[in-house]
Amino acid sequence: MTEKIILNENRFFDPDPSIRKIARELYEGVKDLPIISPHGHVDPRLFSENSPFPDPTELIFIPDHYIFRMLYSQGKLMESLGVPTVDGSWTETDHRKIWQIFGEHFSLFAGTPTGVWLAHELKEVFGIEEKLNKETAQNIYDQIQEKLKTPAYLPRALYDRFNIEVLSTTDKATDTLEHHQTIRESEWDGRVIPCFRPDAVVDIASPDWISNIELLSETARIEIDSYRRYIEALEKRRTFFKSMGATSTDHAVLVPYTHRFSENEVESIFQRALRAESTTEDCADFTAHMLMEFARMSIEDGLVMQIHPGSYRDHNLAVYEKFGTDKGCDIPIQTEYTHNLKELLNVYGNDMRLTLIVFTLDESTYSRELAPLAGHYPAMRLGPPWWFHDSIEGMTRFRQRVIETAGVYNTVGFNDDTRAFPSIPARHDVSRRIDSNFLASLVARHIIDKREAESLSHALAYDLVKKAYKLD
Amino acid sequence: MTEKIILNENRFFDPDPSIRKIARELYEGVKDLPIISPHGHVDPRLFSENSPFPDPTELIFIPDHYIFRMLYSQGKLMESLGVPTVDGSWTETDHRKIWQIFGEHFSLFAGTPTGVWLAHELKEVFGIEEKLNKETAQNIYDQIQEKLKTPAYLPRALYDRFNIEVLSTTDKATDTLEHHQTIRESEWDGRVIPCFRPDAVVDIASPDWISNIELLSETARIEIDSYRRYIEALEKRRTFFKSMGATSTDHAVLVPYTHRFSENEVESIFQRALRAESTTEDCADFTAHMLMEFARMSIEDGLVMQIHPGSYRDHNLAVYEKFGTDKGCDIPIQTEYTHNLKELLNVYGNDMRLTLIVFTLDESTYSRELAPLAGHYPAMRLGPPWWFHDSIEGMTRFRQRVIETAGVYNTVGFNDDTRAFPSIPARHDVSRRIDSNFLASLVARHIIDKREAESLSHALAYDLVKKAYKLD
Amino acid sequence: MTEKIILNENRFFDPDPSIRKIARELYEGVKDLPIISPHGHVDPRLFSENSPFPDPTELIFIPDHYIFRMLYSQGKLMESLGVPTVDGSWTETDHRKIWQIFGEHFSLFAGTPTGVWLAHELKEVFGIEEKLNKETAQNIYDQIQEKLKTPAYLPRALYDRFNIEVLSTTDKATDTLEHHQTIRESEWDGRVIPCFRPDAVVDIASPDWISNIELLSETARIEIDSYRRYIEALEKRRTFFKSMGATSTDHAVLVPYTHRFSENEVESIFQRALRAESTTEDCADFTAHMLMEFARMSIEDGLVMQIHPGSYRDHNLAVYEKFGTDKGCDIPIQTEYTHNLKELLNVYGNDMRLTLIVFTLDESTYSRELAPLAGHYPAMRLGPPWWFHDSIEGMTRFRQRVIETAGVYNTVGFNDDTRAFPSIPARHDVSRRIDSNFLASLVARHIIDKREAESLSHALAYDLVKKAYKLD
Repeated sequence: MTEKIILNENRFFDPDPSIRKIARELYEGVKDLPIISPHGHVDPRLFSENSPFPDPTELIFIPDHYIFRMLYSQGKLMESLGVPTVDGSWTETDHRKIWQIFGEHFSLFAGTPTGVWLAHELKEVFGIEEKLNKETAQNIYDQIQEKLKTPAYLPRALYDRFNIEVLSTTDKATDTLEHHQTIRESEWDGRVIPCFRPDAVVDIASPDWISNIELLSETARIEIDSYRRYIEALEKRRTFFKSMGATSTDHAVLVPYTHRFSENEVESIFQRALRAESTTEDCADFTAHMLMEFARMSIEDGLVMQIHPGSYRDHNLAVYEKFGTDKGCDIPIQTEYTHNLKELLNVYGNDMRLTLIVFTLDESTYSRELAPLAGHYPAMRLGPPWWFHDSIEGMTRFRQRVIETAGVYNTVGFNDDTRAFPSIPARHDVSRRIDSNFLASLVARHIIDKREAESLSHALAYDLVKKAYKLD
Repeated sequence: MTEKIILNENRFFDPDPSIRKIARELYEGVKDLPIISPHGHVDPRLFSENSPFPDPTELIFIPDHYIFRMLYSQGKLMESLGVPTVDGSWTETDHRKIWQIFGEHFSLFAGTPTGVWLAHELKEVFGIEEKLNKETAQNIYDQIQEKLKTPAYLPRALYDRFNIEVLSTTDKATDTLEHHQTIRESEWDGRVIPCFRPDAVVDIASPDWISNIELLSETARIEIDSYRRYIEALEKRRTFFKSMGATSTDHAVLVPYTHRFSENEVESIFQRALRAESTTEDCADFTAHMLMEFARMSIEDGLVMQIHPGSYRDHNLAVYEKFGTDKGCDIPIQTEYTHNLKELLNVYGNDMRLTLIVFTLDESTYSRELAPLAGHYPAMRLGPPWWFHDSIEGMTRFRQRVIETAGVYNTVGFNDDTRAFPSIPARHDVSRRIDSNFLASLVARHIIDKREAESLSHALAYDLVKKAYKLD
Repeated sequence: MTEKIILNENRFFDPDPSIRKIARELYEGVKDLPIISPHGHVDPRLFSENSPFPDPTELIFIPDHYIFRMLYSQGKLMESLGVPTVDGSWTETDHRKIWQIFGEHFSLFAGTPTGVWLAHELKEVFGIEEKLNKETAQNIYDQIQEKLKTPAYLPRALYDRFNIEVLSTTDKATDTLEHHQTIRESEWDGRVIPCFRPDAVVDIASPDWISNIELLSETARIEIDSYRRYIEALEKRRTFFKSMGATSTDHAVLVPYTHRFSENEVESIFQRALRAESTTEDCADFTAHMLMEFARMSIEDGLVMQIHPGSYRDHNLAVYEKFGTDKGCDIPIQTEYTHNLKELLNVYGNDMRLTLIVFTLDESTYSRELAPLAGHYPAMRLGPPWWFHDSIEGMTRFRQRVIETAGVYNTVGFNDDTRAFPSIPARHDVSRRIDSNFLASLVARHIIDKREAESLSHALAYDLVKKAYKLD
């Protein structure tokens, strides 16, 4: 069966004619603005090497846990989907076969953001006219494969075509940033910058922490035998990241508890960690303390600080052990901000030199905790709806619950947060459409006027993210 | 005052013409599909005896805690509403008088699901033309009373007229299922099946637990003096239930904590319980352990497992002591799934032989925990919005918060969950209308197309429930 | 730049023509009803003295933490906004300069309730035609200033013009109510009544508690050296408040835990508090106990009891220490009602002599806990959406999540809860519009009919609040 992909020009807008008309007008005013992507997970190697993407499955399917988790939830084995195993044991390598499974089950994505993004990506990026399904899968594979061999589909060419103004990757504290260096030294003028994400050297509960600290010692050229030296190493790395274009840091924590321990206390925790003798309490305490330290560092070096709490990582141990991290089994938990962030906000939240961008996977905190906090503390801003909530309904709920208390100007525009590079235009397009629609619904109800909406629209699509992430 | 009951053919649909038109078309495609009712509380005796219903109050009012709790909340005494007392002390027996109170206060139900269901039930099932109120109450009572004497209003006739394909009751582990047996042996071909709900023999905190265990010993013909024998008895009962047509089990727990204890540990807990020496911790531990056992059994015998957590039962002790359970004073509590279900999902959730259907009364978990879990684990599915959330707004919130992450195919259609037999068509009709409307709003916003919506519509009304509950 | 303030006559209504038409008709039926304001924070001195308001900044800006918290969140110093300091240190006194900052940043309020209220207030109360902005600020200041000098803008004249039927203030247990006395003795017939709010003499954690108890001793003319005498003093004060027109009490607690301790236990807690030796546990226990006592007193003296839980007060210590309480840094926390209110509701909730109005800042409790509780216990009613949730979206969410379970008649209409006197008409107007719109959306979807909607509309705007707060 062959059906056409139709990207209706009014898609995602409220069907009420008065809202739709205004939404469309607002959208027309922002749709062609450059894309600022201040938080994502694209591999910088793409742009340093600028090699052709190998094939559609490798490009679109395998790295995208949004896609294969859905197939897994409906009983497809991860091995049959080509997800690489940790121990190198068998996993499907016939990419056409995987793509066929994808096509046969594409209807699972009806009504999901993945469905919406893929339609856009297939049609707009790859020029595919037919919907992906059982019958069309191989033909679409061929079409994409063909395109990937052409210069127009090299990573840098796509970056330029996507009209990206700046793209931030996410990088370990120990990363040498060699790919970023190569990009900077190249003649290509794309702006690909790193983001300092030190989780691996902060999470003392991880079995890899000690080896990560050894790596940090090497990379920073500081012998880390004490907490003080550890902090020096981190500061040194931040300085290096900043010199390589970084404007922000990112911190994933289970619970956003913040508390500064005394130098003696934290040194004891640190020494226990070095001896692999950390207690559960140590891990929580150390994270709480380090959030305070990172806020202090941000005030000193000006890097914008992001906190992403509330994801219980690798909930499914069998999947984790066989396939590793980021395999679709990270599950949100309830998250508390009012008590947990209190110390950090009391010590640093009144300081305008700090920009603290807080995210959540717990939507119940939008109106209850996050909007009131961001609507008061000068340093705090709210990150956009994240991960599962980066969706049409999710974005709408975010705006409906946040703006009345925090206003628009305490939010920071959109993050695509993706490792799926060719989905970037689709994601920003959805965001711009939903924000346009949200503002149009305010105009149609005479809560704001059209001129105000135009100004807010531009802010949401471009100005806020640029300012918040210091990307001028 | 006499006003007509008007069941507008477009009721519950969005008034926007583009959504309404599509919703109506989708609804027309599913409205006459057979009703599958995989989880409810109708008394099977209705169908084994097939006797006339005694009177409107006995049929419609007295068994429905949705109705009398609302009157109680506005100051009507439960006694005056004919709710039976535990000790047999006085309660109103003049059913016309109770019906009159109902009529006089029917406006309390404006905007509630009960109001909507009753309008449908009165008009469609009983052919009543006038709205129920103070003036019309007695006349309506007469009209219904008259109908109840006719063959067309016998339970089996109504079942057939309602176009029910299968109706599951909910039955104690110790139930002899004699009424189910009678139905099976009758010439009537209605499919009324039991569901195995062992709460009364699992909840060691209950003062009746020991006598329930004695009853289980008798029914299973196994002397239960150890945990091992207890498990054997439960397995034997499940086999019996399955032989009587059961395809599912149901488990109501306060907290959905799951954890397998060692055989020694659980034997100790069990022996303390037999001696009526359980601690509070024992009760929670035993429930956690038994959820693991029931999942194991489900994998072995194929019965679908349902978990209904988060209802604090009998919150109002005065009402409970005088009138017993299920009297409108069960109040939801916050519920946590990510941590609590982790062990069960890790051990059994990757096994496609298990179907685990999880419900909630805590809507904040829809997008935060349940959709991400169901969107990953192959064994897990999400039950429909339950109890207080089985409503127009409640269903809409469920779809808006679940589908984007879990997709449609990780949900299981509709449950009416009712003990009010004549309300079944009304409840399924509301569900089909709201699902049609939800899908229409996706079509009108070009998120899915009409053909996809038709397929999803059929799935939500019929296919998903049939498959999930193994009712083929 | 000069733009007109336009108060569209259909503002806040759904743009769908069928909803809008009905909403408008419902609104026309209630818009001119008298205002009942049963819970607010207007200073009674306004009406006893009836002096002209000093200037626009003093009247509109400085007392309104909704306004200055937003400017603070965007980096304006509180000192520069004229917020008075605790120690009398410098704060801006040039009110024109503050007003100019307000004008320059008025766009921050786009999409917020404050923005909506101010537009109404400026145009309808003060006759301002131009939008407030950088250019118009001084001219608008002049216009308002001019008006404030005229008799029509004296507090009593505005009260009459606002068509207020009754206005409740909020008053400490130790308040002499002298301004209320003056009002009662005046020839003016406005009904300004007190509300008994004893938090300052209940919160034993407060450093001021002992001096507050001394003040209570004096005011009640009872030497408070024991818990028993303390209760007597409170009861005496309640009697006095009632004699001055009070019909209600109000209780702000962090956690709504309720539990009666034995006389001995509570006497011990009380004596420790008198010796300034309270433990953290004491404070929580005493609050829990006092909620029980206040419910008992309410049954005895008939005062309606309000509970406002879940606000973490003075989250930002630096702001609190410099500027005192109510400075925009009170942040909501998760709140639990099912367990916490259980004892109070079990002991007093079945008693129709009690009216217990419960509020929340945690919207996740609307459908999960509060609506089920209010839909069962005869004594319990739900307060309207409060504070951050007193907004267009907030009110809508409240209705959508509460009505299906609790019905309309277990809610109590609207509270403006404001200290900004001239914003009262705007706030009630928003509420009446949103309720009209909510009911219209039910009519347009054929959930209720127009006649029912008219009756509910009148109830929400006038009848329910009058009855619940005993304001006949």
